Formats: sequence, structure tokens, C-alpha cells
Amino acid sequence: MSTPSTTDTATGGARLPLRRGLEGLTPYGAPQLDVPVLLNVNENPYPPSEAVVAEIADAVAKAAHGLNRYPDRDFPELRAELAEYLQVESGVALGAEQIWAANGSNEVMLHVLQAFGGPDRSVLSFAPTYSMYPEYARDTLTEWVAGRREEDFTLDVDHVRAQIAEHRPAVILLASPNNPTGTALPLDTIEAVCDAAAGAGPSGSDGAPTDAVVVVDEAYGEFRREGVASALTLLDRYPHLAVSRTMSKAFGMAGLRLGYLAATTQLVDHLRVVRLPYHLSAVTQAAALAALRHRAELMSQVASLRAERDALVTWLRGRGLTVADSDANFVLFGLFDDRHEVWNGLLERGVLIREVGPEGWLRVSVGTPQETAAFRAALEEVLGR
Amino acid sequence: MSTPSTTDTATGGARLPLRRGLEGLTPYGAPQLDVPVLLNVNENPYPPSEAVVAEIADAVAKAAHGLNRYPDRDFPELRAELAEYLQVESGVALGAEQIWAANGSNEVMLHVLQAFGGPDRSVLSFAPTYSMYPEYARDTLTEWVAGRREEDFTLDVDHVRAQIAEHRPAVILLASPNNPTGTALPLDTIEAVCDAAAGAGPSGSDGAPTDAVVVVDEAYGEFRREGVASALTLLDRYPHLAVSRTMSKAFGMAGLRLGYLAATTQLVDHLRVVRLPYHLSAVTQAAALAALRHRAELMSQVASLRAERDALVTWLRGRGLTVADSDANFVLFGLFDDRHEVWNGLLERGVLIREVGPEGWLRVSVGTPQETAAFRAALEEVLGR
Repeated sequence: MSTPSTTDTATGGARLPLRRGLEGLTPYGAPQLDVPVLLNVNENPYPPSEAVVAEIADAVAKAAHGLNRYPDRDFPELRAELAEYLQVESGVALGAEQIWAANGSNEVMLHVLQAFGGPDRSVLSFAPTYSMYPEYARDTLTEWVAGRREEDFTLDVDHVRAQIAEHRPAVILLASPNNPTGTALPLDTIEAVCDAAAGAGPSGSDGAPTDAVVVVDEAYGEFRREGVASALTLLDRYPHLAVSRTMSKAFGMAGLRLGYLAATTQLVDHLRVVRLPYHLSAVTQAAALAALRHRAELMSQVASLRAERDALVTWLRGRGLTVADSDANFVLFGLFDDRHEVWNGLLERGVLIREVGPEGWLRVSVGTPQETAAFRAALEEVLGR
Repeated sequence: MSTPSTTDTATGGARLPLRRGLEGLTPYGAPQLDVPVLLNVNENPYPPSEAVVAEIADAVAKAAHGLNRYPDRDFPELRAELAEYLQVESGVALGAEQIWAANGSNEVMLHVLQAFGGPDRSVLSFAPTYSMYPEYARDTLTEWVAGRREEDFTLDVDHVRAQIAEHRPAVILLASPNNPTGTALPLDTIEAVCDAAAGAGPSGSDGAPTDAVVVVDEAYGEFRREGVASALTLLDRYPHLAVSRTMSKAFGMAGLRLGYLAATTQLVDHLRVVRLPYHLSAVTQAAALAALRHRAELMSQVASLRAERDALVTWLRGRGLTVADSDANFVLFGLFDDRHEVWNGLLERGVLIREVGPEGWLRVSVGTPQETAAFRAALEEVLGR
């Protein structure tokens, strides 16, 4: 029997024309519970210092004097500062016009799929990966195609090539480091994907094949281990490559909602067509610029979080658990016959982690040393060791 | 000959799979020119006071202490305050769960069309109307259908009924007051549209007809003349009705990007499914709450802007010009054989207005008395009177 349209006399009683495919769905998101130790959504555990808070408040106050006016639609100053930051972080020189930004990298991804996806087109990714990706596809009516990652969560290049050839995707979405596994892709894998994507996209309006857009999602890029390169270093060689970043993680600015992307001007200009005008508020622009001015301080915790992450991996393995190599600020570990029981046992002890990823695994974010200690103590109790 | 896919060796040289229908398009938006008198985008000319600026900065500083954490996805406090404001403004009691908000009312409209529009569905509006509406349709792959407004920019209810019956739209979008004409719809027109929309939407997944969603866009609602009612007063009778508002206009907070909508909980819950998680930043939530606390002061200029608008209408008519009745903070006037020449003459005199609407008309926003005087003086020069 088909699902009826929504009808609910208690709250209205209309038969609303909900789009097919949305029936019965609930809003996406991890449970937001009030628990002492929050290690569930890969936030940076370190709040901004008083100096950074003051600078943000000051910048917002300045912007607030003109809040009756619309913000700059193209935010050139913020784009230039983000380009400057990427040069310092990865050594890659980029122009401001090569940067795009939006309210979180999920809005950036929406713009990518609005520009390049749509009906009769597909977006290809490789599972297990970030659980929001299928939602971007759904929201833009793009077919979601999930190839597979290997048992160690790396990519098999032959499998990737075969998937590209079979599906001719408009967009290929690679998270590196991957969420929820923590796996970074080696540059030669990304090069192989970009090579395979060239000329392997859907037909353009002239009937000739296009280059599939390869998006490397480096939301956790700053946490990568020594010697792991950023895909930014490949941008000058692949004009169909885009690298997305966020201020939510290493910058510790999840509440600000500022995601961004680097690519050719050509690619960025296509995103500008589908963005809603004035999508980035004057307050967001001002606060992001203030945070970027304090980037050295905001990111001073990245090194200690990486060290904490490596120590946590070692500790978990020392307890006989299986742990995925991690280049992110979280660790995927297992394997449990009943992972929900372990998750719940931790929650009962005031530690919230995330029940996500392949069956049997759990994901824990790297917190402060105190938070990580609380997690370790709780886990030992739960596992009865 | 069909348009080729984008290729530009200067900026990359990729053949990107730009979606069909986006070829050759440029980003939406009025020109952002640096001119002394800006009367082109219907902003409120009054910046927030020092007291409001200080309160916003203070609220943002408080929020900034926790910016390393994600914001509340459902922002219940902001929704409750918006409901409270609507009750004061229009006398209609609403629960917080009946309110939705996003980064500008254009993101609210995107959510509406993501939930109810899509391929094989249409959104019906009546032209001339807001020039962004077709873009919302395009971005959500919904067919755009434009019926017509009468010569005085009102709606003919028989024409509306016929259009609904012919197209069975998923969404009917009515701007009231309408942009760029300033025309408010009488309540009995909106009632007639809601009655006609019931059972006249596309088939649901059970094959039975749905109720088309009627969205009344009251972005300029607070500027309506004495005796003109808000469609909010109809919400309890029509569960397929939604009324959208914004803080950009009467509140003078265009730079903040905060649009919102009131409807049944049922309708709002459908929007929650398609929103991107954490779409409203902690900074936006804090700044909007601070502005709402100062609403009496922020809106104290609404009365004078309405008086200024009425005086401008009278003055323009006194000059022998045709002027549309206006319930908004702008005035549509004409008719000019060469409106571009008039627009350009004003620009040369430092006054930027908008060349928009039906051929022969121009739109001017209501500014401060000084700005309006500058506009009047420039117009007299341009018209040689």
C-alpha cells in the first residue's frame, strides 16, 4: 500500500503536497543531549579565549552599525583572508576569486550539487562515509551512488575507476580525512580519481562528455598526521577538482557556521549562480574575519589534539580493540557485538559518543585531556576490564 | 546549435557538467554601487542605535564563548520570541513550534519548495512580482507558472481560480504587499485563494489530490496602511496557509539575514526535514534575539516611513506621474518612454533607485527625509520640470 499524503488533524488537518521521498522522514542530526562529556559531534573542545571573544564582539559591533543594509553578496575580503589562510596552512597560493563560502560546508555542498547535480545525474561517493552526503543528494534530486571502501577504509583505485565508468557521475565526493573512519586518502589516490574523472562526467548540452567534478572534503584536514598532504596541492593540475574546508573543527568555530571551498574561478563562478543572494550575513562575515585574524591562537590546540588523538588510538589498541587509523579529531573503534549497549553504558556514565559507521563500530571525538580521561574510565567500566 | 558545456582555458579549462538551464546565467542581484543616496533595495534607512548595537555585541560575545560547539538546530528560544512578536504586531497567538526561520526569507522559500516542489510540480505566482521567485523555482527544479495581475496590480480572483484549476500547483506564492508594486491583497482575496487551493494541489502518493500550499510573503507587512489586515489572521482557518516575514525591512536588519514563516506545526515540521542541520548560526540566533528585545525602538521608524511613503506618493502624483498604491516602504512610479534614461539621470545625480517591474515603471525605496528630498530634487532635474 502506498503512503498517504500527510494528514494530521491535531496540527492542522491539511493534506500537504509533501514531495515524494520525504514521507515519514525526520530531521537529520545527532541527539543533542545534556551530558557532562560531549564527544559525539567532533567539535573542538576548546572554547575561544577572552581575547578572541572580545575581537569577535568588537567586529560584530562595527558591522552592526550598518545592519540596516544588505551585506556584500560576494564578500571579497573574507574570501581573500580564507585564501591567505590556506596558503599559510598548505603552501598553495590561491586568489580570492578561487574561494567560495557559505553557512557551513553543507551549504557549500548544496551549491555544488545545485550547480552540477540534479535529475538524471548522480553523485558518487564511497561508503562508509559522512552520513549527510545522501541528504545533499536527496535535497538536490541527484541520484546517490555509493561505492565501497576497503576493509581498512581506504579506496581501491580500480574499484573507483569502474564505478566512475559505470555511473558517469556529475560529482565525486571524497571525504579525506573521512568521517566517520578518520581515513585520509594519499595524494596518488586523489590523482588517480581526478584522472579517471576527466571526460567521464555526464554529457554536456552539446552531447560531448564533461569532466566529473571531484570534491575532496577536508573538513578535518588540519588534523592530518605529519607527511599527509592536502588535496589543495593538486588544484593547479586539475580544473575539475574542488577542496572544501570548514572553520567548525580546527578553528573551533562550529557555532559560526562557516564552510568554504577552493577551486578554479570557473568552478566557483558556477556556484555563485545558484547561491541565494546575500546568503552570508554581515555578522557572519565580520565574525569569521575576526576569527581568522586570531587563527594562530585558535589553532594552537590542533597539535595537542593530534597528540591526544594518537595517544587515544594507542590506548584503545592496548585494550585489544580494533581502531581505524585516524587523521581527524575523532577515532573509530570496535568491534562490538552490541555497540548500542556500549554506547548506552557510556551515556549512563555521562559520556556521549556517536553510534555511527559500520555495524559494530563506535566513534569518539577527541576532547580535552580531562574529557578523554573520563571516556577511558567509563569505557573500562563498561567493558568490565 | 546547442550551447556547449563551459570551457575556459584562462580559468581552468575544465568542461564542467553545469546543470542544464544554468548556462550563461549570472548571479542574481541589484548592482551594488557606491552612491550617496541608496534607494534601490528597499532597505530601512535608519541604522540601529548605539544601544541596540551594544546589546547585539553583548549577546554575540556571550554566544562566542561557546562557538566551538554547534548551535541548537531547532532554536526554540528564537522561535518563541518571533511568535511573541507576531502576536504583538498582528494580534495572532502562535506557538513557537509554528514558526520556522532561516538565513533570509529566501532560504525559507527554498525550504518550502524543497519540501513541496520539485520535478513534475509547479509553483504559481502572479506577475509582476518579486524577481527572485523564479530563481527559487529554478533552484528546486520546480516549474514556474506566472499568472497575471490586473492593470492596478491587484488579483482577479476568477483568473486565480482558473490558473489553480489548470496547473494544480504544489505551492502558490503571493507577495502582499507585492514587490515591486507595493500592492497589498485584501483578506477576502487571500481567503478565496486558500479556498480554491484546498484539494487543488498535485496528487499525493495515494493518488488523491492534496491542498496546494499558499504562501503569503509579507516581507513588507509592517508597512501596510491603516486598516489593511495581515494574512496571519487567517492561519487558524487554513492549515495549508503559511505567512512569511523578515527582519530585513521594518526591523532594519537586512545585514543579519533572518527570515521566518508562520504556519501549522505540521507544515513547519516538513520544512525541518529539508533544512540543512545547524543552518542558523549561534551568532545569528543571538543577534536576532537581541534585536527582538529592542523591537520597540527598532520599529519606531516604521510610522514615519509610512508617512514619508504616503507623502512621496502624493508628491509624485502631483507631478503628473502614475503611482501604484503602496503598502510597502517603496513606491512604483512611471510611466516613462525610456525608463533607463530616467534611472541613469538619477544615478548621475547620486541617487540610486531600481529599474525593475513592468516596462516604463521605476521603483524607489523610501529613505530618510533628506534622502527622499535628494530623490525629489534629482527627479525634477531629470524630468526638466
